[in-house]
Amino acid sequence: MSRVNIGLIGLGTVGGGVVKVLRENSDIFIKKIAVRDINKKRNIENLDPNLLTTNPYEIVEDPDIDIVVEVIGGIEPAFELLKKAIKNKKHIVTANKELLAKKGEELFNLANENNVVILYEAAIAGGIPIITPIKTTLAGNKIDKIAAILNGTTNYILTKMEESNVSYEEVLKEAQQLGYAEADPTGDVEGYDSAYKIATLGTIALNKKIDINKIHREGITKISANDMKFADELGYKIKLIALAELKKDGQVDVRVHPMLVPNTNILSTINDVTNAILLEGHPVGKVMFAGPGAGEMPTASSVVGDIIAIQKEINEENPLPMMKCTHKIKAEQTDIEETENKYYISITAANIPGVIGTIGEICGRHRINLASVLQKGVCKEDFAQIVVITETSKESDIQNAISELKNNNRIVKINNLIRVME
Amino acid sequence: MSRVNIGLIGLGTVGGGVVKVLRENSDIFIKKIAVRDINKKRNIENLDPNLLTTNPYEIVEDPDIDIVVEVIGGIEPAFELLKKAIKNKKHIVTANKELLAKKGEELFNLANENNVVILYEAAIAGGIPIITPIKTTLAGNKIDKIAAILNGTTNYILTKMEESNVSYEEVLKEAQQLGYAEADPTGDVEGYDSAYKIATLGTIALNKKIDINKIHREGITKISANDMKFADELGYKIKLIALAELKKDGQVDVRVHPMLVPNTNILSTINDVTNAILLEGHPVGKVMFAGPGAGEMPTASSVVGDIIAIQKEINEENPLPMMKCTHKIKAEQTDIEETENKYYISITAANIPGVIGTIGEICGRHRINLASVLQKGVCKEDFAQIVVITETSKESDIQNAISELKNNNRIVKINNLIRVME
Repeated sequence: MSRVNIGLIGLGTVGGGVVKVLRENSDIFIKKIAVRDINKKRNIENLDPNLLTTNPYEIVEDPDIDIVVEVIGGIEPAFELLKKAIKNKKHIVTANKELLAKKGEELFNLANENNVVILYEAAIAGGIPIITPIKTTLAGNKIDKIAAILNGTTNYILTKMEESNVSYEEVLKEAQQLGYAEADPTGDVEGYDSAYKIATLGTIALNKKIDINKIHREGITKISANDMKFADELGYKIKLIALAELKKDGQVDVRVHPMLVPNTNILSTINDVTNAILLEGHPVGKVMFAGPGAGEMPTASSVVGDIIAIQKEINEENPLPMMKCTHKIKAEQTDIEETENKYYISITAANIPGVIGTIGEICGRHRINLASVLQKGVCKEDFAQIVVITETSKESDIQNAISELKNNNRIVKINNLIRVME
Repeated sequence: MSRVNIGLIGLGTVGGGVVKVLRENSDIFIKKIAVRDINKKRNIENLDPNLLTTNPYEIVEDPDIDIVVEVIGGIEPAFELLKKAIKNKKHIVTANKELLAKKGEELFNLANENNVVILYEAAIAGGIPIITPIKTTLAGNKIDKIAAILNGTTNYILTKMEESNVSYEEVLKEAQQLGYAEADPTGDVEGYDSAYKIATLGTIALNKKIDINKIHREGITKISANDMKFADELGYKIKLIALAELKKDGQVDVRVHPMLVPNTNILSTINDVTNAILLEGHPVGKVMFAGPGAGEMPTASSVVGDIIAIQKEINEENPLPMMKCTHKIKAEQTDIEETENKYYISITAANIPGVIGTIGEICGRHRINLASVLQKGVCKEDFAQIVVITETSKESDIQNAISELKNNNRIVKINNLIRVME
């Protein structure tokens, strides 16, 4: 096996992990590491200061470097650097989900033109092997559906809310103190991170190019302690789910939003920062992958797996043919209005006889059947708390019913509307 | 990509699935299928009778065949046929766990000499991608531990026993009627099937050659409806677990036996014929893979994945270097007597005061601490049913304590001894 030289762009959490893991591997040599601040104190023992540079072009233009490992994240300068590296015939290993979701097509085309590969196992679900299994063991399958928990921060927050029955705000603060959530948590809690990942994962699995801008996305900030409690009583957990489904009409339904997951579904058992991906395909049936979705060492595991894969084939005429990103047809993405779901609706209503009848009547007029209705007793003053689970209904019908409910004088407030997994 | 010719040895459940899946793939051509009985009625539409032969040597000696797919199972004639095929420079795809466990070393050495590969994703856990992820994405890891449910038949039986609280014998009969268990269920229910699989899986994951003959193996035939009920009350499920662990002293502890799995462990949620593999490694941490462990289509999924992997690289100078089976050091396997475990002990005792004290005293003398003791009330006559969970203890101490308990006149019977997962 040939010894390879790698150049590392970025020495944050993941980069540090990569350095630590590669030390135990004598065939892979880190030639240069690009950092923003050479003098920053880092938690890496015996780091040779001569490896460091503040100029990443020293890496992407170095003819001795075979593989460029990019772990800085974000669009720029990563995009410009990787384009340059690819043009210089370097293979790429990246953990950059945002870049793949927004610029993946351009990068993969450029890589194909230059006969190099881009591997990115670490970008989707951290340490969990998922891209490679789809492209190898499952290569004979037609995958129809993915339902996944792809963001550890939100899964941690939801798990703690459920366990302790406290508010979102309270748990977020705790997660920030523990380093599980960033100071500005928007990317995680509003579902952007999950959307980047499902865009790339869905494109690979369903074999159609998914447009990140057409993914319906809702975060977890509106989930209340009450929603958690009611879901639990009804036999569900609330999870932030990334979905990608190839519909019978050929459309692709891709979205990220909270869902009530039945306790009988294995995704309901995935707690804390763990990630999980449930795939359905033919002929395999249902397969699940679960594990650490982020963190220094798990992510480094996937980065190093990709580096070793390239290393073993670097002198072949046609390296890693299974890993090439072949041209894909653009997905026709389903509009959220056109989707069909079961729904959980939490309603505060006037505590007067017949109010459940009113809710049922309005829903019925919009072709929505109710599967169960819970009256959760009287809250303050004369208000009743009512929780409804519907049968499968059209999103547009639900939205119309919600509008009408909001305008009804017996209804005080629609507290939340959450989709329910079958 | 080059078109490849495959020869299929065996046209049972898995072979039929492979034919069906490959029909949808125009680059892979089935040239010949060896069967025992050409005239047998088969559930495969439009099967060209000219493909069939009763002489498998027509396949292993055909110079036009690139890949031999073996799905007959058992040692002979599979072993002789595959050796011949390898010497004729054919790549091998096999689902034969028994052959790999007993003759793997010889076959892999022969394949290396002949510069061909043997792929066997379908032999371990059916449709679940596990061998490829270990050899690719997780290649940078040192894997320390595997705990797995690798046999669908026994998991189905245990799940039904737990759900309906009926006896092993009753559920076995039902499983046989449904086709989930064979007429002679020994291979499954006595743990042979799981032992074959963990021998190969452990060898790959822990990177040490495991001797199938040194694997401690116990089946599920002694599990009673009472054990299920008591386990449930204590917060456990009973599963047939295949373990392989690299100990700190370098020994490898490999065994197959029933275990009480805590409800908090994800393996406890794996029901019916589903299989699951929980891996622990550095740097990745814990990763789980779950899915269909057997069946026509899931197994065909893995067989076809392997065929495609070979097809994509068949003209390379050095095909599939990551999939080669490199020479491994022989594992020094831990004797079951030397292992340490927690234990569940179900005891029928005389219903007289102080009998729990007697049990505690005998255990204590053998360095066994009791974590919990449940008196399950009086059974018929004057007998009490007592269930004990111990702290971590040495197997030899437990066996000595059990002998002494059996000889004590206050103890009527030791009903069962089952190890408990931490």
